Amino acid sequence: MRKMRRKGLASMAAQTVASTTNSVDLGPAAALSCRECGHRVPLGPVFACEECFGPLEIAYDFSAYDTEELRKQIEAGPANIWRYAPLLPVPADVADKPNINPGWTQLVKADNLARELGVTGGLYVKDDSGNPTHSFKDRVVAQAIEAARAFGFTTLSCSSTGNLAGAVGAAAARAGFRSCVFIPHDLEQGKVVMAAVYGGELVGIEGNYDDVNRFCSELIGDPAGEGWGFVNVNLRPYYAEGSKTLAYEICEQLGWQLPDQLVVPIASGSQLTKIDKGLQELIKLGLVEDKPYKIFGAQAEGCSPVSVAYKAGHDVVRPQKPNTIAKSLAIGNPADGPYVLDIARRTGGAVEDVNDEQVVDAIKLLARTEGIFAETAGGVTVGVAKKLIENGLLDPTLTTVVLNTGDGLKTLDAVAGTGLSATIRPNLESFREAGLA
Amino acid sequence: MRKMRRKGLASMAAQTVASTTNSVDLGPAAALSCRECGHRVPLGPVFACEECFGPLEIAYDFSAYDTEELRKQIEAGPANIWRYAPLLPVPADVADKPNINPGWTQLVKADNLARELGVTGGLYVKDDSGNPTHSFKDRVVAQAIEAARAFGFTTLSCSSTGNLAGAVGAAAARAGFRSCVFIPHDLEQGKVVMAAVYGGELVGIEGNYDDVNRFCSELIGDPAGEGWGFVNVNLRPYYAEGSKTLAYEICEQLGWQLPDQLVVPIASGSQLTKIDKGLQELIKLGLVEDKPYKIFGAQAEGCSPVSVAYKAGHDVVRPQKPNTIAKSLAIGNPADGPYVLDIARRTGGAVEDVNDEQVVDAIKLLARTEGIFAETAGGVTVGVAKKLIENGLLDPTLTTVVLNTGDGLKTLDAVAGTGLSATIRPNLESFREAGLA
Repeated sequence: MRKMRRKGLASMAAQTVASTTNSVDLGPAAALSCRECGHRVPLGPVFACEECFGPLEIAYDFSAYDTEELRKQIEAGPANIWRYAPLLPVPADVADKPNINPGWTQLVKADNLARELGVTGGLYVKDDSGNPTHSFKDRVVAQAIEAARAFGFTTLSCSSTGNLAGAVGAAAARAGFRSCVFIPHDLEQGKVVMAAVYGGELVGIEGNYDDVNRFCSELIGDPAGEGWGFVNVNLRPYYAEGSKTLAYEICEQLGWQLPDQLVVPIASGSQLTKIDKGLQELIKLGLVEDKPYKIFGAQAEGCSPVSVAYKAGHDVVRPQKPNTIAKSLAIGNPADGPYVLDIARRTGGAVEDVNDEQVVDAIKLLARTEGIFAETAGGVTVGVAKKLIENGLLDPTLTTVVLNTGDGLKTLDAVAGTGLSATIRPNLESFREAGLA
Repeated sequence: MRKMRRKGLASMAAQTVASTTNSVDLGPAAALSCRECGHRVPLGPVFACEECFGPLEIAYDFSAYDTEELRKQIEAGPANIWRYAPLLPVPADVADKPNINPGWTQLVKADNLARELGVTGGLYVKDDSGNPTHSFKDRVVAQAIEAARAFGFTTLSCSSTGNLAGAVGAAAARAGFRSCVFIPHDLEQGKVVMAAVYGGELVGIEGNYDDVNRFCSELIGDPAGEGWGFVNVNLRPYYAEGSKTLAYEICEQLGWQLPDQLVVPIASGSQLTKIDKGLQELIKLGLVEDKPYKIFGAQAEGCSPVSVAYKAGHDVVRPQKPNTIAKSLAIGNPADGPYVLDIARRTGGAVEDVNDEQVVDAIKLLARTEGIFAETAGGVTVGVAKKLIENGLLDPTLTTVVLNTGDGLKTLDAVAGTGLSATIRPNLESFREAGLA
């Protein structure tokens, strides 16, 4: 049954390809290639292999690049992800097109946090709250915009429970697309406002997030969805490549060096797998020296299917029903879970999880030591980094990068208990009485 | 009475200077100079002239700079305000010290907004919501941090009702200072959380913002305040210089050219006067070609003392009791009001205001056209730009830059009415019925 639906989608999408890919210019992107069986198809708005239903990803032709020329070109590029245009599925003149232009966020040398955690080898926080809508989603949506433009789509869409809705709304507005985003109808008012302010259609679906997703799949196969690019469905192969830019930036910001260890959050697992892909590309292109690196995956205990599978030594991931404050990571059935397990094991990393209390503590720890106010997802990665040091899996003498993928302003509830340290009358006597002098 | 208090403060502060300025290295900053009478004093934590009580500002020695070498040095610098270290009161190695590193925010070419407003000469939004704590305050606090370090202060403080508290808390945490921020005790819980999360002391004062300020002035003169740097009081001359970086970045991002017109928000008026100072410096240094530019000031109608004075042709500003949703601009007695009037008149600009409804409309307009979700202050500048075009004061055929100084996530209440465009059941029939196909 599931296979049939996927096959239906794949062939429908393939039909669309035929009429749209003749003149597609997406730079070095040469084709789509199945991650499972290697079957190649032309670039188009397809996401599942017509042979084996495996996920399609971008295959590149980087053969013409000279390492030193490429490095110079990148370094002379704009202070955003388009400095890496030669490595992404986008046209060479992408920086001149209207887009949200995320990236080149700060890699913060976190010396205060390092001291608290006992890290001596150099600790860095890659702080993606600096993106235009303050989450890493801007990176992937910016890619989807360029693919949507290439394929002639006019409406940009997605299902979302938060960050992605805002990222799509903002990017669509800038780039001149209509947007229509689907969310569960009972989302918190604050999140609705953040997504609605960009003026696109924001449609509440009577049902939960799974119902929203199911409806979106139906819409893609219906004539009503013609001309619609769903950033994380029929544009997913392009969209997902945006996460590679995290790997590129981290290495360039370290002076074109691989870090020894990375701690990356896991929602669908796509981000972690694309970071690994990005690091491998840099090695193959000669932009960094080849050396071992370890990738660690971070989950919240209340949604830890990959962590559970990792610890049990399984190759497959058993779905969970999420129950955690880290809602942006709360995907109970992560599509790329098995690939994450592969990468953690191959690189000598691990997958770990922390409970909600540890998430909140880690948010406060990061804010107190580095002045970075992270979303709950950032609490997960910092909390997991701490736990991995404590249980000896993360080596504190090595260079370590921890990702913060979102902004604390979006998950204020998590730290709602934080408040005034004192209340005083407006005079010095009251100030002294409070012990503040 | 007022004079006496100011004189008292000035001489107290001067005492502190004597013991701290012997070995101060703040780069090109040569001295403090009174804006009114030109009296010079050594660099130190003073803010009022001991001769005439006028405001002190930084006097620089730029005489050794070669224009082309300076330009190259800047362009090779980091993607933050420290690329302009040679023009700021900071040591040359500032980029290596722990600080929040704001700036180099996007100058967005706002073609969609230009179309709606009828601007043909090129319209840009300088989007300072991309700073670490998502407001321009990070620029000024980053300067204050370096001054505090130079003067040996160990506690960083301020009075605040919002953005500044978060900026001080974050920067102090990163840079290793204790922080103690004073706010009115009845501030909204969300704002308290945003300021408290960085773990510094956050003290509620039983009283309004004026009471908080009065208390801070008392504390500066008391032994209990020894070692305390109040970013916008005894560190104000250094702090204020951070706003110059907006002028530098705008010109560099335009390809080392002056814009023809700028629309700048007015709270105390300091930002606008320092942007003018920054533009003048670039002209004198030969980094941009000298040509006329116009600076327009923007206020909310509910706090429009400078706009009222401008329209009445007055040189002085009559204080108002603020009542507007644009709380980050709600300073009823703006210290730099008279200087703003001077600059608007000298450059051929103007000062205008918009009401709260127009502020909200402008927030939505900017979000809908450019995908930028601005704080109410950004609604004020965009709304004023629109009004100035309508009343013929702003020339739509000229290159125009509008400032957005903060993030919409901090003033969600302003657009709380924004919501779902439709609610449907999770099927195509319901989708079609809602007219979304």
